[in-house]
Amino acid sequence: METSIVTRRTIRKYKQEDIPAEKLDAMLYQASRAATMGNMQLYSVVVTRSAEMKEKLSPLHFNQPMVKGAPVVLTFCADFNRFTKWCELRNAQPGYDNVLSWLNAVSDTLLYVQAFCSLAEAAGYGTCYLGTTLYNPQGIIDLLKLPKLTFPVATITVGVPDECPEQPDRLPHLAYIHEETYQDYTPNQLDIIYYLKEQLEENQKFVEVNKKENLAQVFTDCRYTKKDNEAMSEGLLAALKAQGFLR
Amino acid sequence: METSIVTRRTIRKYKQEDIPAEKLDAMLYQASRAATMGNMQLYSVVVTRSAEMKEKLSPLHFNQPMVKGAPVVLTFCADFNRFTKWCELRNAQPGYDNVLSWLNAVSDTLLYVQAFCSLAEAAGYGTCYLGTTLYNPQGIIDLLKLPKLTFPVATITVGVPDECPEQPDRLPHLAYIHEETYQDYTPNQLDIIYYLKEQLEENQKFVEVNKKENLAQVFTDCRYTKKDNEAMSEGLLAALKAQGFLR
Repeated sequence: METSIVTRRTIRKYKQEDIPAEKLDAMLYQASRAATMGNMQLYSVVVTRSAEMKEKLSPLHFNQPMVKGAPVVLTFCADFNRFTKWCELRNAQPGYDNVLSWLNAVSDTLLYVQAFCSLAEAAGYGTCYLGTTLYNPQGIIDLLKLPKLTFPVATITVGVPDECPEQPDRLPHLAYIHEETYQDYTPNQLDIIYYLKEQLEENQKFVEVNKKENLAQVFTDCRYTKKDNEAMSEGLLAALKAQGFLR
Repeated sequence: METSIVTRRTIRKYKQEDIPAEKLDAMLYQASRAATMGNMQLYSVVVTRSAEMKEKLSPLHFNQPMVKGAPVVLTFCADFNRFTKWCELRNAQPGYDNVLSWLNAVSDTLLYVQAFCSLAEAAGYGTCYLGTTLYNPQGIIDLLKLPKLTFPVATITVGVPDECPEQPDRLPHLAYIHEETYQDYTPNQLDIIYYLKEQLEENQKFVEVNKKENLAQVFTDCRYTKKDNEAMSEGLLAALKAQGFLR
């Protein structure tokens, strides 16, 4: 079933059905029409199909079952290595071992990721975005043998959908659209913006199961805690240094 | 004219024709179907329509004519302010003033940007991605009154196209697709990968006009220099600190 962005949902269960290499390559090529800084295309994609590599990738993504369950796992990497090596080969002096260049490459990569996902979904595939890529970049760097001046940014599992979950809620658009300047949020506005989310039965269940007072506490105390975020921020900065993007 | 990702090109010249607010809002809402971490939607969009604000934004984007020439300029911001304020209101302890959280929000934002651009292009609008947003984040933060725990990530100009330029070249897809592990580039492979780009007449003209030996030197010595990148990296880190994402 074709999916456009309007009807999309994350797909976590896939049929036992491969994606032909030519089809995948074609989508990975077409996605390159997304905007890219100075037409430098500052990204690479590592394609994982082998059971052995999925086995090794899995714990780096906290054993989320999509890694082993999908026919294809794609690790999208910010890449200034290729461009820098080309400059060196041409007796040009590259200067891309810095934070701005890293963020330029991250930007190129994420636009490319979304362009790819839209194409894959339009072709009837389902995708899942694994945010865990940023939680343990060094492990992924080591496993995929990512050289200096590259950095893993996003992992996408892709396959033929074997489920059709409900679309999740989204905030009302006025929650994030600001006219001319940013209008900061009053308590009353926040109550309205998060009202629907807080009322959802499944979210109320999360609050109950986790013995919290409200949904916000589920996020701060269980899902995305200060302690974890700070520890993983250290790992992120260390990996950025190891990959040559930060002094 | 409708445009899909396959036929897209950046549009820098727009007709004197507004984008109705309802149409823009609808696209900004539909784009929210893109993947987002934990369904937190860590972004905001500041919509610039007024001539006065465009006048002030323009120099922050190095006076690129699209800023004043487009009916609408959108500044997409990573936003952990809204979520954090909601947590505080609910007596939950947020921990999103760190680099990982910033990058999570940047990721959400860029997926959302590309989803929006695809929708806008499918509806017949043209877009231009201004990478300059990252060159001077503090200026943009000040002008748009972006509070702590927000950060400007991308600026898009949008309007009805008044040009139809040639599609630019792209690298052959094998240049950036790696099977199972990253395969680093040999000089011979780099020659092949960049051959087409180096042969293009317009690129050969750039080499000549800038009195360089080759195209790589145009990039390193003129367009994206080590000196500029390093100076702007300092500004980026300073803005990250000022916005509360880095100690």
